[in-house]
Amino acid sequence: MNVASATPYADITAERFAEAQARVAAHARHTPLLTSRILSERTGFNVRLKAEVFQRGGSYKLRGPLNKVALLSEEERARGVVCSSAGNHAQGVALAAAIYGIRAVVVMAENATPSKIEATRAYGAEVVLHGTIWDEANEKAQQLVEDEGLTYVHPFDDPDLIVGQGTLGLEIHDDMPEVDVVVVPIGGGGLISGVTLALRSRNPEIRIVGVESSGAPAMKRSVMAGERVTLDHVDCSIDGLKVKRVGEHTFEIVRRYVDEIVTLPDREIFDAMLWTMQYCKVVVEGAAAASVAALLHDLVPAPSGANVVCVLSGGNLNLAQISGLTWN
Amino acid sequence: MNVASATPYADITAERFAEAQARVAAHARHTPLLTSRILSERTGFNVRLKAEVFQRGGSYKLRGPLNKVALLSEEERARGVVCSSAGNHAQGVALAAAIYGIRAVVVMAENATPSKIEATRAYGAEVVLHGTIWDEANEKAQQLVEDEGLTYVHPFDDPDLIVGQGTLGLEIHDDMPEVDVVVVPIGGGGLISGVTLALRSRNPEIRIVGVESSGAPAMKRSVMAGERVTLDHVDCSIDGLKVKRVGEHTFEIVRRYVDEIVTLPDREIFDAMLWTMQYCKVVVEGAAAASVAALLHDLVPAPSGANVVCVLSGGNLNLAQISGLTWN
Repeated sequence: MNVASATPYADITAERFAEAQARVAAHARHTPLLTSRILSERTGFNVRLKAEVFQRGGSYKLRGPLNKVALLSEEERARGVVCSSAGNHAQGVALAAAIYGIRAVVVMAENATPSKIEATRAYGAEVVLHGTIWDEANEKAQQLVEDEGLTYVHPFDDPDLIVGQGTLGLEIHDDMPEVDVVVVPIGGGGLISGVTLALRSRNPEIRIVGVESSGAPAMKRSVMAGERVTLDHVDCSIDGLKVKRVGEHTFEIVRRYVDEIVTLPDREIFDAMLWTMQYCKVVVEGAAAASVAALLHDLVPAPSGANVVCVLSGGNLNLAQISGLTWN
Repeated sequence: MNVASATPYADITAERFAEAQARVAAHARHTPLLTSRILSERTGFNVRLKAEVFQRGGSYKLRGPLNKVALLSEEERARGVVCSSAGNHAQGVALAAAIYGIRAVVVMAENATPSKIEATRAYGAEVVLHGTIWDEANEKAQQLVEDEGLTYVHPFDDPDLIVGQGTLGLEIHDDMPEVDVVVVPIGGGGLISGVTLALRSRNPEIRIVGVESSGAPAMKRSVMAGERVTLDHVDCSIDGLKVKRVGEHTFEIVRRYVDEIVTLPDREIFDAMLWTMQYCKVVVEGAAAASVAALLHDLVPAPSGANVVCVLSGGNLNLAQISGLTWN
């Protein structure tokens, strides 16, 4: 089935997803779809949690790089890959490269925290420190593409990467074919783009709800404007959600196929993070809790009894981060 | 198969466990046995985590009361049950009673935290506050047995309760028949007694390792002494582990069938609690992390590649509790 016929994404077919799933499944986990009695009772839906926190590397960010690296030519693999990130993308790229036994260079800003540098090196990647903000680190990464012939792995705006991340959506459908609604956090839009196309390839009736920080609503603003906008100012401190400008591909996919985008302030997302740990017993990072926050604040419109899946996208939380927070 | 022939526990048969499992499974979850790559790499074993944190009520403490209540006569059910606890046992009894639609009275000391009182009431139990320590609350519970004909549900020293808790062991064996070693926290000894008899009923070769706080080694001291001893002093602040005297039944079962008891100080158990959340993404309470602590400190002797299961007995952690702790 051609999921996006007569659109720029006509080539992202069910077959392409099936191939990606085989590649990804060879090295990544099929993560569990947990039932949540407490969220079901609170909302009146039948709520499941796609616990991607149990993925290798602690987030979905392994899936896309696994697909991307698998599709490189022998020559490209011999040269290696590069990305710029101080977060989950760095670990995903480093781990995928390690699995394929190829070189990975990760560029971080010079003020990156030692624990993130260490975690990325632990996966076998070379860490290059450059500049003081992501833009500068990213320029350095581009320079390494030119100088050393490395393949750049974008954190979200790359079709092969998007298809890889989308394998998470296929697993949801494999485990619960009767799913009605899937709630997905939005940062740059890579995860929701992949999950949306994957689910559309299985059943076009499934509703997709995206959740963004109201302090960084780059996707919602872009969709409303009908074109990509760059936010002047970002008032968001949640890794993975604080994005000023979404991708070209992710924007086109989201505006065409995502049913709704809702936004919540950081405070409500942080509270949902603590709530999820307290009541669902799963360690989630802030971005992952955005999907639960949307449910807790009644922002997901669906009929009573609907099968609703919240994507818990990652669990890479430094416990020191929450040590200053208290549960009310 | 008679698991304990020629012992006082000759009547705890595989058939008795199978009946308990049917009763418990009707209302409790079969919790997942998660693989742990990081613990496997660290230890050289094939490590699984029995994630009982996902049980209804957040701990294994529902299983025993479900079996106990199911075995009451109509007349006993009409009168109801009583226990004294400010912890997981209170919630287990309250929830089991609610499931069977019978009265539950939970006696707590007057200084019980409001959140525990509220949580127990939320399950529909009547909370009675009496005295300042557990002994006084327990006397009140005994008085209610006499005055109102309620059935007392002991937190650990009751064969029907023990068999109910042991259904957790059957699930481990159902999911991993090739299990070699099971590591179980010890407080009063109810969980390890049930799990041990359950696993012995399936395969007498499975090794059982118990883990106790070195600040409250009531079981280890008793086993070494050959008789139950009462600790003069307890230097342990972990709920579920701080026990001065173990049960009559639990002592007899543990000394006969448990292969080894290891002990660790609170600090190492707390660190393992944070480590488990950080790296395994599961929220565990202190007592539950004791099994992981034993692995992290190389206290579980087994050959390389052995199939080792750590029981994560519960996840009822008040996040405020850890908000003062930092991860090193």
